[in-house]
Amino acid sequence: MANQNGATADLKSTFLDVYSVLKSELTNDPAFQFTDDSRQWVERMLEYNVPGGKLNRGLSVIDSYKLLKEGKDLTEEEIFLASTLGWCIEWLQAFFLVLDDIMDNSHTRRGQPCWFRVPKVGMIAVNDGVLLRNHIPRILKKHFRQKPYYVDLLDLFNEVEFQTASGQMIDLITTLEGEKDLSKYTLPLHRRIVEYKTAYYSFYLPVACALLMAGENLDEHISVKDILVEMGIYFQVQDDYLDCFGDPKKIGKIGTDIEDFKCSWLVVKALENCNEEQKQVLYEHYGKENPANVERVKALYNDLNLQGVFEEFESKSYEKLTTGIEAHPSKAVQAVLKSFLAKIYKRQK
Amino acid sequence: MANQNGATADLKSTFLDVYSVLKSELTNDPAFQFTDDSRQWVERMLEYNVPGGKLNRGLSVIDSYKLLKEGKDLTEEEIFLASTLGWCIEWLQAFFLVLDDIMDNSHTRRGQPCWFRVPKVGMIAVNDGVLLRNHIPRILKKHFRQKPYYVDLLDLFNEVEFQTASGQMIDLITTLEGEKDLSKYTLPLHRRIVEYKTAYYSFYLPVACALLMAGENLDEHISVKDILVEMGIYFQVQDDYLDCFGDPKKIGKIGTDIEDFKCSWLVVKALENCNEEQKQVLYEHYGKENPANVERVKALYNDLNLQGVFEEFESKSYEKLTTGIEAHPSKAVQAVLKSFLAKIYKRQK
Repeated sequence: MANQNGATADLKSTFLDVYSVLKSELTNDPAFQFTDDSRQWVERMLEYNVPGGKLNRGLSVIDSYKLLKEGKDLTEEEIFLASTLGWCIEWLQAFFLVLDDIMDNSHTRRGQPCWFRVPKVGMIAVNDGVLLRNHIPRILKKHFRQKPYYVDLLDLFNEVEFQTASGQMIDLITTLEGEKDLSKYTLPLHRRIVEYKTAYYSFYLPVACALLMAGENLDEHISVKDILVEMGIYFQVQDDYLDCFGDPKKIGKIGTDIEDFKCSWLVVKALENCNEEQKQVLYEHYGKENPANVERVKALYNDLNLQGVFEEFESKSYEKLTTGIEAHPSKAVQAVLKSFLAKIYKRQK
Repeated sequence: MANQNGATADLKSTFLDVYSVLKSELTNDPAFQFTDDSRQWVERMLEYNVPGGKLNRGLSVIDSYKLLKEGKDLTEEEIFLASTLGWCIEWLQAFFLVLDDIMDNSHTRRGQPCWFRVPKVGMIAVNDGVLLRNHIPRILKKHFRQKPYYVDLLDLFNEVEFQTASGQMIDLITTLEGEKDLSKYTLPLHRRIVEYKTAYYSFYLPVACALLMAGENLDEHISVKDILVEMGIYFQVQDDYLDCFGDPKKIGKIGTDIEDFKCSWLVVKALENCNEEQKQVLYEHYGKENPANVERVKALYNDLNLQGVFEEFESKSYEKLTTGIEAHPSKAVQAVLKSFLAKIYKRQK
């Protein structure tokens, strides 16, 4: 166990070394003549927004690639390239988070003020988000231009970014535009939001990167995509569940989905299972700041046994995912998918 | 002349027909499952932000491609593809404008309220900007995936977008961060901002698209890039000049560069040519809303004969550009560059 943690720590420190290389390349990109001020600005912006998360998405590219290579030792170049793709996903995530925080008018992120709230940043953060997004093709061009799968990598990142922004769009227009109308919150809508907004970039993208590096054609792995998207949806349902029923000490924040009128899996399930009288309660109390309103919604969730409904969903999802994984012809791909599932099944944070 | 206008009108209406095709493809993209609301949202957002400009950048792809083909009639497919690339540039422009207006807290654009000021849009405009940007690779993939120059197109749009966002960054951090310090405003800084923020995407990108479609290798056309970037800088200097000395009826707006403390070519030239006493006047009056301050700056511009300095710059630029163009080995490429220059030389709007 000490050994395993040691190996994990090593992997993470190798991964962070690659970040430093990429940062230095980007702040010396010959396609732009930096001024001293602008180089420092980008440097500080990257430090603030890119490496400070859990790095799960990025690290999972390396893990997945290792499993696809079935125990063969990776060369230094392979580790570097897999890490680089992992960082591209972290850059993509940073781009989304910087802009989402502006759109949601959020206050903190990863235990510090959101980037746009830092003095002198303000709305420059919009352009910084765009720059983060632009860094991805710069990184890919520098390190993958000569690879046979270069164009597939560009297409992949473009498609997944498009899907994520589209999911974000339906989330924004249902939450903000419609003046708090619960009748729109249905399971198909919830599924569509989380599939596009989260599942593609968090679950499919890391594995797709590893598959491309391993020389695979993504068109032949539609079933892998389907399973990972399903896993991503399951992951987001857990997120919605933990927001209300998780231990704030473990998840690191106090959930506010009820106050924020979020299209959470819980409210969708509550609407599905409640009688007319309970529906009135939801309509009256959901989406209000007052703790008394929030408590009333939580009491209703308990009356409806949503914890039990969730546990049922969790074991059904696990079963379905496992069956799907075991139907896959390649043992190596099975191993990749199982390692993802193991990381999230019954997670409490 | 009637005939020529007729031909121009035809070209524009063909070009607008292509827009309708692209819009319909994007709102039925199989990579995303649209809800009715989200399809309508994208439709409205595109109509509001994409086709309403002068379309010069987009149309110039078709013009340039025609000149490269030296009078041969273009096939329907060639016209469609050149128009499509032209629209990609218009989409890129729309993406920048939607986000720039948020960052500058602007009020109007193309004679209507800025998109983020439209009721119920607000900060959703940030995500809409991102969507506009994401549409470009969707369009390119649908229509160019099988072309030998597909990967070069992706690289080109990526590089030019990166350069534009980087130019925008130095503009933002010099104008906003530094608490109105005129001592930073120098000719090299002005040149760097306008080169990256405007010249690459407005001048180089349309011609580069046409060259790729004509089967050319962009690495062999560095001199074309250099000339177009130089032309873009000249264009932006004209813009700065017209902001102060142009006829508001012709340019369609009342310039506010002096009030806005912009790093304009005029203030840079004024700083370069003034004595200590005049410098004090600039430091005291530049960047203030009060019309009396603005008048004081304009009077100084007149004392320094900036109109004469500009005319000198204009004819020197024209001479240098013409010499550069005539040194190019290809008559067709010369024709493309000359047509760009003719469109902007001594323009009054």
